[in-house]
Amino acid sequence: MVVASVDNLADERSKAQFDVGAMKIVWAGSKHVFDVTDRMARIVASDPEFRKDNRTTLGRKELFKNTLRKMAHVVKRANELRLTEEEASKLRFFVDEPGYLDLHWGMFVPAIKGQGTEEQQEKWLPLASRMEIIGCYAQTELGHGSNVQGLETTATFDPKTDEFIIHSPSLTSYKWWPGGLGKVSTHVVVYARLVSGGQEHGIYGFIVQLRSLDDHTPLPGIIIGDIGTKFGSGAYNTMDNGFVCFNRVRIPRNHMLMRFCQVTREGNVCLSDVPKQMVYGTMVYVRQTIVSDASWALSRAVCIAVRYSAIRRQFGSQDRGIETQVLDYKTQQSRLFPLLASAYAFRFVGEWLKWLYADVTERLQANDFSTLPEAHACTAGLKSLTTSVTADAIEECRKLCGGHGYLCSSGLPELFAVYVPACTYEGDNVVLLLQVARFLVKTVSRLAAGKKPVGTTTYMGNAEHLMQCKSSASSPEDWLKPSVVLEAFEARAFRLAVACARDISKFSTPEAGFAELSIDLVEAAIAHCEVIVVSRFIEKVQQDIPGDGVKEQLQILCFIYALHLIHKHSGEFLSTGCITPEQATLANEQLRTLYGQVRPNAVSLVDAFNYTDHYLGSALGRYDGNVYATLYAQALRDPLNDTVVPDGYEEFIRPVLKQTMRLSRL
Amino acid sequence: MVVASVDNLADERSKAQFDVGAMKIVWAGSKHVFDVTDRMARIVASDPEFRKDNRTTLGRKELFKNTLRKMAHVVKRANELRLTEEEASKLRFFVDEPGYLDLHWGMFVPAIKGQGTEEQQEKWLPLASRMEIIGCYAQTELGHGSNVQGLETTATFDPKTDEFIIHSPSLTSYKWWPGGLGKVSTHVVVYARLVSGGQEHGIYGFIVQLRSLDDHTPLPGIIIGDIGTKFGSGAYNTMDNGFVCFNRVRIPRNHMLMRFCQVTREGNVCLSDVPKQMVYGTMVYVRQTIVSDASWALSRAVCIAVRYSAIRRQFGSQDRGIETQVLDYKTQQSRLFPLLASAYAFRFVGEWLKWLYADVTERLQANDFSTLPEAHACTAGLKSLTTSVTADAIEECRKLCGGHGYLCSSGLPELFAVYVPACTYEGDNVVLLLQVARFLVKTVSRLAAGKKPVGTTTYMGNAEHLMQCKSSASSPEDWLKPSVVLEAFEARAFRLAVACARDISKFSTPEAGFAELSIDLVEAAIAHCEVIVVSRFIEKVQQDIPGDGVKEQLQILCFIYALHLIHKHSGEFLSTGCITPEQATLANEQLRTLYGQVRPNAVSLVDAFNYTDHYLGSALGRYDGNVYATLYAQALRDPLNDTVVPDGYEEFIRPVLKQTMRLSRL
Ligand SMILES: Cc1cc2nc3c(=O)[nH]c(=O)nc-3n(C[C@H](O)[C@H](O)[C@H](O)COP(=O)(O)OP(=O)(O)OC[C@H]3O[C@@H](n4cnc5c(N)ncnc54)[C@H](O)[C@@H]3O)c2cc1C
Ligand SMILES: Cc1cc2nc3c(=O)[nH]c(=O)nc-3n(C[C@H](O)[C@H](O)[C@H](O)COP(=O)(O)OP(=O)(O)OC[C@H]3O[C@@H](n4cnc5c(N)ncnc54)[C@H](O)[C@@H]3O)c2cc1C
Repeated sequence: MVVASVDNLADERSKAQFDVGAMKIVWAGSKHVFDVTDRMARIVASDPEFRKDNRTTLGRKELFKNTLRKMAHVVKRANELRLTEEEASKLRFFVDEPGYLDLHWGMFVPAIKGQGTEEQQEKWLPLASRMEIIGCYAQTELGHGSNVQGLETTATFDPKTDEFIIHSPSLTSYKWWPGGLGKVSTHVVVYARLVSGGQEHGIYGFIVQLRSLDDHTPLPGIIIGDIGTKFGSGAYNTMDNGFVCFNRVRIPRNHMLMRFCQVTREGNVCLSDVPKQMVYGTMVYVRQTIVSDASWALSRAVCIAVRYSAIRRQFGSQDRGIETQVLDYKTQQSRLFPLLASAYAFRFVGEWLKWLYADVTERLQANDFSTLPEAHACTAGLKSLTTSVTADAIEECRKLCGGHGYLCSSGLPELFAVYVPACTYEGDNVVLLLQVARFLVKTVSRLAAGKKPVGTTTYMGNAEHLMQCKSSASSPEDWLKPSVVLEAFEARAFRLAVACARDISKFSTPEAGFAELSIDLVEAAIAHCEVIVVSRFIEKVQQDIPGDGVKEQLQILCFIYALHLIHKHSGEFLSTGCITPEQATLANEQLRTLYGQVRPNAVSLVDAFNYTDHYLGSALGRYDGNVYATLYAQALRDPLNDTVVPDGYEEFIRPVLKQTMRLSRL
Repeated sequence: MVVASVDNLADERSKAQFDVGAMKIVWAGSKHVFDVTDRMARIVASDPEFRKDNRTTLGRKELFKNTLRKMAHVVKRANELRLTEEEASKLRFFVDEPGYLDLHWGMFVPAIKGQGTEEQQEKWLPLASRMEIIGCYAQTELGHGSNVQGLETTATFDPKTDEFIIHSPSLTSYKWWPGGLGKVSTHVVVYARLVSGGQEHGIYGFIVQLRSLDDHTPLPGIIIGDIGTKFGSGAYNTMDNGFVCFNRVRIPRNHMLMRFCQVTREGNVCLSDVPKQMVYGTMVYVRQTIVSDASWALSRAVCIAVRYSAIRRQFGSQDRGIETQVLDYKTQQSRLFPLLASAYAFRFVGEWLKWLYADVTERLQANDFSTLPEAHACTAGLKSLTTSVTADAIEECRKLCGGHGYLCSSGLPELFAVYVPACTYEGDNVVLLLQVARFLVKTVSRLAAGKKPVGTTTYMGNAEHLMQCKSSASSPEDWLKPSVVLEAFEARAFRLAVACARDISKFSTPEAGFAELSIDLVEAAIAHCEVIVVSRFIEKVQQDIPGDGVKEQLQILCFIYALHLIHKHSGEFLSTGCITPEQATLANEQLRTLYGQVRPNAVSLVDAFNYTDHYLGSALGRYDGNVYATLYAQALRDPLNDTVVPDGYEEFIRPVLKQTMRLSRL
């Protein structure tokens, strides 16, 4: 019960067995990225306009207005400092508040770039870059999200006036969810069912002006507003996710984004010669950023939980001496260190996805579409895997902080609430895994036909070996051999995929089989995605990595990542015969040893993320470890503490106490 | 894309294969409980004072005042309607808003009942029942929660004045978390380190007055306030969880709760003849209510997700006809139906715990302490298991609702945020599992000595059989045999516990072994708790249950509950050799069949919870299925929609658009 007066974190830092500075570069990706990131983070952290510690006490209106203020300040600072696009996007990132700028820069501009003709780009992009217009992206409707082909909004060509009529035929056709739509955007890319000459031609994007550029009032025929509060206090409520109903709103013909499909003056619809697959390039890009974001969010939560676990002491004292740091408990380690390892794993697979995007783009330009389905499946799967794990991990980190993790001042509740929709937007995670599974089954069934699998499915080419191999692990140390680990993961994934393909063929139609076996298919898809992450991590730690002890630490994390998955999915590894129960036990033993090895480095491994206290936004995760005084100071700032006697005492507490309600018993 | 105009839920209801009315009684526990519950739920639902749909848009102060208003109204209504204690507690339950009444009735009053002498009870209970004083329960400190023995607050006896001096010697000793403390309570039971004659005597409870009964200002020496916002909007922020610092506050000697330990006028400390174990009786009671609450919270989330999944249609249409209800997708079923089954499972194990509590109480009165350790471990484990599963399940239900689940109007975000602390309070779930594990290891090690295990560990008496049995399942149908299922669960749990006990003995000391193997120990503890839930459920469905088809439905749910656990933990079932991979596959096949059987009954199975729309508080979970119009109506009520052009436009949006910030590029 005596509380440590030592600075636990300084002590922890002195124990590090590697060069933290060098690790920071590895984490950032390069010295250049580190420098930009570091500089932007500090600019935000030192600017009082970007304070965020009052967010969770504000009502909706004040909160939203506060965000508008910050967004304007971002624009102002980016301008004053003459930031490059790279810098400005980092600045926005560290402001750490969902707002219309995200959608303007992240969805509206890319939609025009990706789907607009050159002419359209020349017209709209300058307006958008100067922010003379603010745009958003409206695909989802009240009744349709995942099934884009089911969207109800119509865009009917009227040859008389050379216009499209944008119309919402039903309540369920109202656009619903787009960020920035509710209160801010002047323009939107609306996805609608193209109708011309009485015929339907599929879903395309149309630029529609929503609000007057003079006074911001909605244009005629447009009913528009905010869809209401969302999960958490603060969190995503800073964003005006909106709805809009179009009552036969007319737009010029050339407001349809016509890169892939053109509608002529006469109303003829013709596909352009730009191959439709180009669209997937954008998808690969967007999902790659989501995977990167997962590693940021996860590492942030882990940073808070690791530091606090080193500060927090509970039990284990003899004679009322100093207690045990909860980070020393094996249960705490087994819950926390795999998440630390996952943060690094996702960081590296995210970096690799950047390369994949570049590769795909290059190939597309050379009209080579061969790797596209694989790249598409791979990014869909990794989006699903990393966001699901991250969402759960943030909540686990919160629980790892005990009661105090439940306070907003821990930073974790808001981080969770703002992060979780990543499991849903840009593709519901289960729907995405089913897409991956479909691709895997196809890949497997084509093996027989001698078709060589490419990219991340290359390992499946090794079919015969993967079907019959037995793990050679016979000691805990064997589980530190990359080949032993990889083989187990590849064999498990392949056998699950093969079993699915085989079982599907027993049904009357493949579709019926696919539907009935979708639970197994999702498991096979996850197994495949884990192969990707594990093999990218192993690749990474086999490279030269500068910095004292850096490589060794990453190796430890790499094997923690792999072995904790073997434990988590041991049912699959065992039932497919990839490993034996004895080998599973050896892997667990090795895992426990690795926890011990990472323990003295844990605080330094989260220091390597180089997060400012502003970005962390957590009393528990502070760099200096001054947890308790900060919790107290934050509590005192709660509006409820403005007065000692609360508003409402006279009307609602005193009458209870003074029995003026004449209660007999309750 | 054509949206169904049919009432999907009426259609669903017509498909039910059982008597929903009879199931309602089974769920409630008895006709009497059903009647009371139903009546109270309706009273709350029909009273506009108890509206709760505006909670998530209010700032902290308004929100809190709003709760004070509701609490006063509860007191008033309970009085006017002359409610019994049973009725009043249901009324409070359905008001569904954390507030000081919970702590007053749920912790303060029971603490006095459990730890006060008869004299003390006579003095304080009438004041508390009439609510002339409002009390709360202060154990946790800023620096200590789980480790109660580490509390720092002191209560030093001053024989000169016959008083205790309550003191907070450090910042970390501030009481921190108690509900109702921050702004409302006039009194508190404080847990502090008893010091008399310069000696320490352990932790005891002391009644301390906090605030003036005249004007509600804090008494001298007391610094008190709210600890700040917590997870979620609305949610637990209606509660004034508080901190308090005592600066040598003096209380009369007889304010120490002296049932177990007395301090005499001279300052002598003597244990009373009431056995200390009696305290555990209260713990069993409190945890039993937490398990019940888990089934309520879980069933509520499941009710929302099932109904919405029957309304929501996505994909699967031919020719733009009606799409597939997402409830028909096997992935949706495999995520949702085990949660539905768990809700029923927890309901029944909760009912059984009530019986256990009665049994323990009876034995305690007869000075029979033999079953206490087992009952204590069992309730600790079930508290941990049910709250962890429920917290995760609520979030899963939210995800199952896609994007709309992220809106507060779905009811799920607030339900999650308000529920999750149950994993932490009344014992951190991991700390509790370690206690269970300790008990299991002890039980196993005593088997050799011929000591017969009791209560829920009775099965361990069958040691020899459990160590060598092999499952006889050879067809999917075999997995519907209670004996086959139970044997697998018991064997797995027992073998895990035995392995832990064996491995611990390899360490230099049992403590070292326990610490090092705590990860395995937690898994063994969970396995044991699952034996309890599964066997109680099986017992239940082997009884006579009135009502057409009711028993059949419960049997289906029972096996879904058991078989989904076998799948989830297949690694353990396989590695302990309790089942083979082939048997695991058979269990999965059976599980898929069971999903198909529950599908037509799903909506009716959640109707059986008998929840009002008020209690559900969800646009997605409405009884009438009118989802989309309700989402829209709720959105329109958001404060941001008060004006078309948002507050802040002139200052923060217009300057961006009009380039008055002279941005070049961002
Ligand atoms: C914070 C946030 C921001 C957003 N921003 C935007 C935006 O800016 N612009 C925009 O256009 N949209 C936006 N969206 C909407 C988002 O893209 C959709 O919510 C998402 O696509 C999921 O679709 P849904 O909500 O229709 O889910 P649904 O498809 O209705 O999912 C419901 C359930 O059905 C299941 N399911 C659906 N189809 C299948 C299937 N075929 N097989 C098995 N299971 C299935 C899902 O797994 C899920 O469990 C946003 C959403 C959120 C939460
Ligand atoms: C909403 C809410 C309401 C509350 N209401 C009250 C109230 O009315 N009155 C009151 O007195 N208190 C209240 N509490 C406090 C609550 O009882 C404590 O938060 C709880 O006991 C957990 O303790 P802790 O916060 O100290 O967690 P810690 O013990 O600090 O836990 C931190 C981490 O350490 C781990 N850990 C701790 N010890 C061990 C160990 N021996 N071995 C392995 N791992 C360990 C835990 O598993 C956890 O991961 C409330 C809390 C909340 C969140």
